[in-house]
Amino acid sequence: MTARASILLAHGSSDPHWLAPFEELLTTVKSHSSDIDTPVELAYMELAQPDLHTQAAKLVEQGIEHIDVLPLFFAAGRHLRRDVPKILEDIEQLWHQQGRTLTISLHAPIGMEPEVKEAISQVIARQLND
Amino acid sequence: MTARASILLAHGSSDPHWLAPFEELLTTVKSHSSDIDTPVELAYMELAQPDLHTQAAKLVEQGIEHIDVLPLFFAAGRHLRRDVPKILEDIEQLWHQQGRTLTISLHAPIGMEPEVKEAISQVIARQLND
Repeated sequence: MTARASILLAHGSSDPHWLAPFEELLTTVKSHSSDIDTPVELAYMELAQPDLHTQAAKLVEQGIEHIDVLPLFFAAGRHLRRDVPKILEDIEQLWHQQGRTLTISLHAPIGMEPEVKEAISQVIARQLND
Repeated sequence: MTARASILLAHGSSDPHWLAPFEELLTTVKSHSSDIDTPVELAYMELAQPDLHTQAAKLVEQGIEHIDVLPLFFAAGRHLRRDVPKILEDIEQLWHQQGRTLTISLHAPIGMEPEVKEAISQVIARQLND
């Protein structure tokens, strides 16, 4: 069986105030998924560390052969359709050149998931009624 | 009673694929809030139109005196703590100089609302179990 792991991917920012909620989310996810034995990490696409290269390297060193990248983005624009696939391809090639097996799957942005869309609509409806 | 309206504020992108889900969200919100008689518009902070100046002008022309700006952002970084407040202050001053009453309130980012955080955590937990 292929050893798998996931990376939560956020855009990144030079402002630590922006990063903090993503770090809290990782903590929440880890605490809710104690029955899941696949590692979960957080990476930033740009402007902050750790980046995708760093987190992928950490997971490969742990023996991981398949990484699911879950983008914490509202929608898929230039970043998720072009920049991130390029980074992931570079990472795969880098490890293949070192003789390691690594497949990375890029998932749909979290903002496009029905539950998240529904929660956003409901919060807006409530704010409009306030 | 002060005439109020709301603006959903997204970051913006030069990629129309990124913008589409926000336009769908506005449609959903409008269809769900037919019992609410306050106007709701969508604006982008940068890289796309309509921007905040355009949407605020449209609302002021309709007699609106208070605008609630609801940011469709995951977290408050440099943009929501510095850039957007500056734009909103400029808009208020512009209209005050023309003798119009206008107050703009900037709300917390939607991604910080408990329902949205919970939905995000649940979707991630489900994806980790797949």
